[in-house]
Amino acid sequence: MSKNFPLSSAGFNPFGDLIGLNFTKFEKGISQCQLTITKQLLNPHDVVHGGVLYSMADTGMGGALYSHLSNDELCATVEIKINYFKAVKSGRLICNTKLIHSGRKIAVLESEIMNNGELVSKATGTYSIFKKKRL
Amino acid sequence: MSKNFPLSSAGFNPFGDLIGLNFTKFEKGISQCQLTITKQLLNPHDVVHGGVLYSMADTGMGGALYSHLSNDELCATVEIKINYFKAVKSGRLICNTKLIHSGRKIAVLESEIMNNGELVSKATGTYSIFKKKRL
Amino acid sequence: MSKNFPLSSAGFNPFGDLIGLNFTKFEKGISQCQLTITKQLLNPHDVVHGGVLYSMADTGMGGALYSHLSNDELCATVEIKINYFKAVKSGRLICNTKLIHSGRKIAVLESEIMNNGELVSKATGTYSIFKKKRL
Amino acid sequence: MSKNFPLSSAGFNPFGDLIGLNFTKFEKGISQCQLTITKQLLNPHDVVHGGVLYSMADTGMGGALYSHLSNDELCATVEIKINYFKAVKSGRLICNTKLIHSGRKIAVLESEIMNNGELVSKATGTYSIFKKKRL
Repeated sequence: MSKNFPLSSAGFNPFGDLIGLNFTKFEKGISQCQLTITKQLLNPHDVVHGGVLYSMADTGMGGALYSHLSNDELCATVEIKINYFKAVKSGRLICNTKLIHSGRKIAVLESEIMNNGELVSKATGTYSIFKKKRL
Repeated sequence: MSKNFPLSSAGFNPFGDLIGLNFTKFEKGISQCQLTITKQLLNPHDVVHGGVLYSMADTGMGGALYSHLSNDELCATVEIKINYFKAVKSGRLICNTKLIHSGRKIAVLESEIMNNGELVSKATGTYSIFKKKRL
Repeated sequence: MSKNFPLSSAGFNPFGDLIGLNFTKFEKGISQCQLTITKQLLNPHDVVHGGVLYSMADTGMGGALYSHLSNDELCATVEIKINYFKAVKSGRLICNTKLIHSGRKIAVLESEIMNNGELVSKATGTYSIFKKKRL
Repeated sequence: MSKNFPLSSAGFNPFGDLIGLNFTKFEKGISQCQLTITKQLLNPHDVVHGGVLYSMADTGMGGALYSHLSNDELCATVEIKINYFKAVKSGRLICNTKLIHSGRKIAVLESEIMNNGELVSKATGTYSIFKKKRL
């Protein structure tokens, strides 16, 4: 497992902590992260803010990609596109992510977000891969 | 101005409050929202999490679209695609959004996010428009 | 099967004919269409123009969605996003499409385009669904 | 002007020739390309196939980007997302493209497609930039 992206460590991902995100799987280009819906994650329509689902996908893609990269590589999000299928009110959100293409400099990943066994959102993201600068 | 989406009212948008988002413009299909970067909005690379920039765009698009809709209409995000141009570390983020197409059932909006006078991210979103259910 | 979108009929889809596209499957929200790469489908880099792969996806999504709609419904493309994984030079392209979400007014589909058993492109599209106008 | 992408030369872009595409501007990260709608560009609904509008955007983005690159650089489409605002039946299509971000390895461009003075489609694309291999 890449040392870049520990599965669990408080303070490692401050925004992930803020929204209550935890990784439950993280290996070989696949990741799973989860969170429990709380009131502070809602939008003015009293459903989960789209930014929360998106943040699960973006974080899950970073995790899945880091599980595939070597230790001297970093990645950054180039772009993500997310579709919403159903408004979500409560319960737990589970985001399953997989690497669907990995070139030398570009990787593409997909995330599916589930709530109560139903697909509520799907995202596709493009990441750039680059070498860590040596000190 | 639509009563659906007040420019300012604590508790109206819990997730917006969580990330410190405020609207500074909101009229005729245009919106501007802002936030100050704090440590809790960072990702493991010590730059602002992509989900924060995305959440500004999604919220800004909702605001811009509600400023254009009539009082008996609601909207929901169908999909958003966001590109990132530059990692952001500190300071203030300003998200300018405009409606670029509005049909009877579908609207399309664009958001540009600036940091220190530089374009750091751009998003395009598709929203569905529907009538409020009568009580 | 919907009468809107016959599996095969010369002249039915003029642009599909122009690029040599044929449907080989078309039922229950799934479609498959194919074409053989010819010189006139290449771009200045001597590989298949991105617009050809895209046109397979857009047409395949229309086909898959019509196979799911009832006879009094029509659809139109709202937006499509396509990622390219590998340049394609020759041989046959096969585009497999499936409906991944269908609401009352909005449907979302995915297409995977294969060349020599390899995934070369993937697209996600959003379509609007509406009732045919009565005469 | 880059030698990679001549403004006009029959046979240079076979698929562009097939759909009748011509460049009318091409400099400093900006391009304009046009075509006249003919029957063979229509879809089963008797409107211009979405793949034609997309192909204008993809080609226009390549042109705009090559006008900005140096002679030892090449580019390839990573992904494009296109929104459709209005079905188009006849007349001339004009696609205006501009570079909105250019990094060392990644560029982002936008295309607006007009028909009779009206915006009918808008696309955003991500391209990768790389050095030509020396012989």
